[in-house]
Amino acid sequence: MVDFIYGHWAVMETLRAGRRRLEQLLISESAEERGLVAEIVAAARERGVNVNRVPRRIIDDLAGGANHQNVVLRAGPYPYSDMDTAFALAAQRGEKPFFLLLDLLKDPQNVGVLLRVADSVGVHGVVFQERRSVSVTPAVVNASSGAVEHLHCLQVTNLVSAMKDLKARDVWLVGLDIGPDVPPIDRTNLDMPIGLVLGSEGEGMRRLVRDTCDLLLQLPMRGHVASLNVATAGSIALYAAWQARGWQGWPHAQPAH
Amino acid sequence: MVDFIYGHWAVMETLRAGRRRLEQLLISESAEERGLVAEIVAAARERGVNVNRVPRRIIDDLAGGANHQNVVLRAGPYPYSDMDTAFALAAQRGEKPFFLLLDLLKDPQNVGVLLRVADSVGVHGVVFQERRSVSVTPAVVNASSGAVEHLHCLQVTNLVSAMKDLKARDVWLVGLDIGPDVPPIDRTNLDMPIGLVLGSEGEGMRRLVRDTCDLLLQLPMRGHVASLNVATAGSIALYAAWQARGWQGWPHAQPAH
Repeated sequence: MVDFIYGHWAVMETLRAGRRRLEQLLISESAEERGLVAEIVAAARERGVNVNRVPRRIIDDLAGGANHQNVVLRAGPYPYSDMDTAFALAAQRGEKPFFLLLDLLKDPQNVGVLLRVADSVGVHGVVFQERRSVSVTPAVVNASSGAVEHLHCLQVTNLVSAMKDLKARDVWLVGLDIGPDVPPIDRTNLDMPIGLVLGSEGEGMRRLVRDTCDLLLQLPMRGHVASLNVATAGSIALYAAWQARGWQGWPHAQPAH
Repeated sequence: MVDFIYGHWAVMETLRAGRRRLEQLLISESAEERGLVAEIVAAARERGVNVNRVPRRIIDDLAGGANHQNVVLRAGPYPYSDMDTAFALAAQRGEKPFFLLLDLLKDPQNVGVLLRVADSVGVHGVVFQERRSVSVTPAVVNASSGAVEHLHCLQVTNLVSAMKDLKARDVWLVGLDIGPDVPPIDRTNLDMPIGLVLGSEGEGMRRLVRDTCDLLLQLPMRGHVASLNVATAGSIALYAAWQARGWQGWPHAQPAH
């Protein structure tokens, strides 16, 4: 299995993270080797990756018509992680576990945005269900600006079983929901071992997923449009949880005055 | 001047808001008249707007190749608003003024997301600079899911002059910035008359815009990717400001226990 990773930041972060097998860097013949492209070429050479110039139409093909910015990296499959590794990361950092669970999200762009934010707030593990959901495809890597290459993503057979595993390890599952009886997101102190659960675009969480949550919270809305995009809503919720932790791990964190 | 608004929610909210001249609704011959399409047709008929079936390629042309979902509304230009109207809305609602200022944003998708969130949190006015910035184009209306049709957007000749006007009316200008010396977003109580200022993709605020802010705040980040997308960062900041106001105007708002 081979992935063709495309786009400047996606390729750069895949090289930097170095968790995949790195096979070959392809660059359009027409692309000038300066700025970020030059940095990508240098990063590839440092890691002993062959760099080849090819006609742009080959890059177009390999990227499936997406906006590839003239670079494609041929690499091994995404290195999915597991629960133990994610918990070990939390323990090593001395932090309460912080998970993101995606219930059958379909849109690579939404998932990419969420993964980029998950990386920004220090999430220890992201859980995907294997079937009927987007996985970590090159489109997702691209939409995350490569951030997913640094995250622990887990692919599980059944999301509800994974939720029960997390509960057994004392993680609180907080579902982002909607409805008149659901309390707003600031009603609960989110400074606890937490798994934030997001439902799919349009349909929200499946019923069994919702029922398995320990707690439902919602993002208030007062406008005219029925609901926020899941990437926007999830990003806000992830930041709310990190804020509750006092921006733990932020390089510029200072004690409040 | 005529705009061709495309996409289900964009067309629906333009009809509902009824602030533009509504000329004609065009639907692809092949589209089935059910679900949201049926609701759009009903909404158009209620408002006396002609509904015509046309070949799909005409819709493709009018939407400039964008994902139009088989509907295009021919309508008058976007009805830009002004400062006095935005302040009157705040006064009528009994709320502290809440503005969003966009410094030369270029990407319709980013601006659309921000406008959708601005509507969700009850922003009274959104300020754009006329030149070198995206304006409220059909692509922006689409990306906002039509939310912009309900907002007061202002187009000004010079953003810095508009900032000075706002200051003269006792609005605090809070710039979303980045850097080791900029305090995090929760360091200040945002429950005040506020104008949130966002810089452009890649470049941030222009120097004079930054210098005109009363206060700079940042969204902490601890990940591997250099910065969040402006739409994500701005959305989080807008919600932080609304949360500081106790979700004022939210239909389900209850006193905290």
